[in-house]
Amino acid sequence: MKKVLIANRGEIAVRIIRTLKELGIASVAVYSTADKDSLHAALADEAYCIGPAKSSESYLNIDSILAAAGISGADAIHPGYGFLSETPEFARRCEEQDIIFIGPTSEMMQKMGDKAEARSTMKEAGVPVIPGSDGPVETLDEVKEVIETIDYPVVIKAVSGGGGKGMRFVHDESSLEKSFKEAKKEAKNAFDDDRIYVERYIPKARHIEVQVVGDGKGDAVHLYERDCSIQRNNQKLIEEAPAQILSEESRKYITKTTRDAIAKLEYGGAGTVEYLYVEEEDAFHFIEMNTRIQVEHTVTETITGVDIVRLQVEVALFNELNVTQEDIAITGFAIETRINAEDPEKNFMPSPGPVDTLHFGLGRNVRVDTAVYPGYHIPPNYDSMIAKVIVSGDDRAEAINKMTHVLEETVIGPLKTNLDFQYYLMQHPDYIDNVVDIKFLTRNEIIED
Amino acid sequence: MKKVLIANRGEIAVRIIRTLKELGIASVAVYSTADKDSLHAALADEAYCIGPAKSSESYLNIDSILAAAGISGADAIHPGYGFLSETPEFARRCEEQDIIFIGPTSEMMQKMGDKAEARSTMKEAGVPVIPGSDGPVETLDEVKEVIETIDYPVVIKAVSGGGGKGMRFVHDESSLEKSFKEAKKEAKNAFDDDRIYVERYIPKARHIEVQVVGDGKGDAVHLYERDCSIQRNNQKLIEEAPAQILSEESRKYITKTTRDAIAKLEYGGAGTVEYLYVEEEDAFHFIEMNTRIQVEHTVTETITGVDIVRLQVEVALFNELNVTQEDIAITGFAIETRINAEDPEKNFMPSPGPVDTLHFGLGRNVRVDTAVYPGYHIPPNYDSMIAKVIVSGDDRAEAINKMTHVLEETVIGPLKTNLDFQYYLMQHPDYIDNVVDIKFLTRNEIIED
Repeated sequence: MKKVLIANRGEIAVRIIRTLKELGIASVAVYSTADKDSLHAALADEAYCIGPAKSSESYLNIDSILAAAGISGADAIHPGYGFLSETPEFARRCEEQDIIFIGPTSEMMQKMGDKAEARSTMKEAGVPVIPGSDGPVETLDEVKEVIETIDYPVVIKAVSGGGGKGMRFVHDESSLEKSFKEAKKEAKNAFDDDRIYVERYIPKARHIEVQVVGDGKGDAVHLYERDCSIQRNNQKLIEEAPAQILSEESRKYITKTTRDAIAKLEYGGAGTVEYLYVEEEDAFHFIEMNTRIQVEHTVTETITGVDIVRLQVEVALFNELNVTQEDIAITGFAIETRINAEDPEKNFMPSPGPVDTLHFGLGRNVRVDTAVYPGYHIPPNYDSMIAKVIVSGDDRAEAINKMTHVLEETVIGPLKTNLDFQYYLMQHPDYIDNVVDIKFLTRNEIIED
Repeated sequence: MKKVLIANRGEIAVRIIRTLKELGIASVAVYSTADKDSLHAALADEAYCIGPAKSSESYLNIDSILAAAGISGADAIHPGYGFLSETPEFARRCEEQDIIFIGPTSEMMQKMGDKAEARSTMKEAGVPVIPGSDGPVETLDEVKEVIETIDYPVVIKAVSGGGGKGMRFVHDESSLEKSFKEAKKEAKNAFDDDRIYVERYIPKARHIEVQVVGDGKGDAVHLYERDCSIQRNNQKLIEEAPAQILSEESRKYITKTTRDAIAKLEYGGAGTVEYLYVEEEDAFHFIEMNTRIQVEHTVTETITGVDIVRLQVEVALFNELNVTQEDIAITGFAIETRINAEDPEKNFMPSPGPVDTLHFGLGRNVRVDTAVYPGYHIPPNYDSMIAKVIVSGDDRAEAINKMTHVLEETVIGPLKTNLDFQYYLMQHPDYIDNVVDIKFLTRNEIIED
């Protein structure tokens, strides 16, 4: 009998434990002192405290987690999402200690974690990328050369960038030189690395992502795509599957292209390849690849009937990809709303605290993934998610209708939540008509920029 | 915009209200004083108190319910299950007042409510019935004649019978005369009607039922079958769909035969045709037809993706059967367990009372239908159901495995429930191996006879 340690907390830890139980695999939870009353610690077969509330000393503490794996005799570690799930160092340490890391190799994670390398790797594997420089550009003349092939507007980005630092939007040549210099200077100051690259600026796009699972040996399947265009500060709020906006031809193109690339890269495990999709041009542009399970994997499970966590475990522990592309078909339409402990009136500030009332609208075609129970106290130390509510219907309209009524029935208190805000979105005419993009909420001044 | 009154309470009322909301139809709840804090009264668009706790003065009070329908201006009444759902008088009163009764005509209900008439009607329509006399038998010689064609053992039953009164099992001719006389006498005393009929005695059988929906004009569909063999005192405890025991040929035979009969009878609405199935003989024997929605319709919804309440409403209100037989296919396997407020240690005595803790194992492939919320007080006046837990999987083994873990996670208290008993059954080797029949629990002395 195998044993798997879950290096995570909250709903995803509970989600993983459930599949492990169904597979007859022993589960080991780790928890911080802030999580001693957590559901994931209660449900696992074994549970070990790995440190104080502060993530850096518990859920991000590789030594503590590996110690718990050693003590419990775990064969494998499932990293969930967030925390150490995309830290190549963690995967490498697991590899060194002969503990199976349920995810791709550390090398693959490293490659996909580096924006420029991910772009060139994916481009080489046949995936459409945003037109731009292949790697860093040194001089202003080089930048100009690139722009001649991709046209304005463009965006200059720092190779080591993040959080908008070293980033400049350039709409015509008049401001190019100034922006180029500023970006390099800012990048140097922020990251001690003044290398920059240039891409076409995409002012309006949807977020469409393809779920894949590879066996690490050249075989891979896709599980179709999701549309996660409703976002606040790049955080997804509502996710759908499939992406209704796509024609059957575009769906076939992007899912097959993505699957083929993943197979070619000999990627192992579950992953998501994210794209900006420009509707007017029917064009996909690679953003990044997430080398882990995602929050919104649930909507894909709903339309395909596949247990994605199970596939992850089977690939990692048994070297088996127990599904073929022909087995995977779409039935119906699914939507997920993330219900968070945050105050929409105060710019969605997290609002942790005691949950006295927790009642979901349940019944037909409703799935709720949560690690919260009545009487639970949501600690302030981690993300503010209370639950994921997933519904399905024959089509998008039916699913939206269902979600509206499910949210209407749901009661959570006394803490502040985004429940009413999600309920409002479900009834927004543009959302219902599906005329949205990733800047939908700010452009319509539904939330502040 | 249409308006529908739900002449029921509890989970089925909530279930119906949800579908009405999704259809954009206004819902009217009725409730007794004992149900003033009930979920169904809270969720409906309007709610009317129709009397005191005692059912006979509220949920069985036709005058009160029709008054509420009049006051609210309801176009139709959905009777749910139990209460007045199979009372032809109620349907007739609705018909007289031009209120649509969501179910078959009162005439059809009458016909199916009479055991002998239901048998002969169904036999004529091509449905397999238990071999026996066609209607009452007068003399001992007539009884002997019938037995010559059906063979021993037989059971003599009172035409107006119920509760085992006037019933005699006869294993050979030696006790026939005595049993015949006793049965007639007992029937006369109990029902003032000494007519009896004779059927072959079926000592061991499964309960298999076919879900149908007819448009009342000769069109009908079946939604495959359920296996509800795990029963206590004729009350179903666990229900499954499809019936794994059936060969594909037997499934085709019984579902098609049932559908054809329902079409021929011009039955309108949802209904269930129940059979005893003798595995060794691959033989179905009609028991009765339920002319209403059933508790366990959920498992059929899960494997077919069809909303059966929606079909009921559409047939009754819009004269539309919006599904064809070709649309309906089986995907996967579903199991329902009924979680009741009853004490297995005290012969399953109802144990109503406050529900302080109510936490279900949720997540992928789990559906929970309930009208109970934490803090709710289950009144002693009605049935003891707390919730229906429905799970699905690719096959029966996967669904049992899933249910086991879902029940393991579920916490309900402080009142006594059958949760642990259901958990025990899910792990019973004979249940897992599917070697069960309707007397499984008593024969194995799992419960008292």
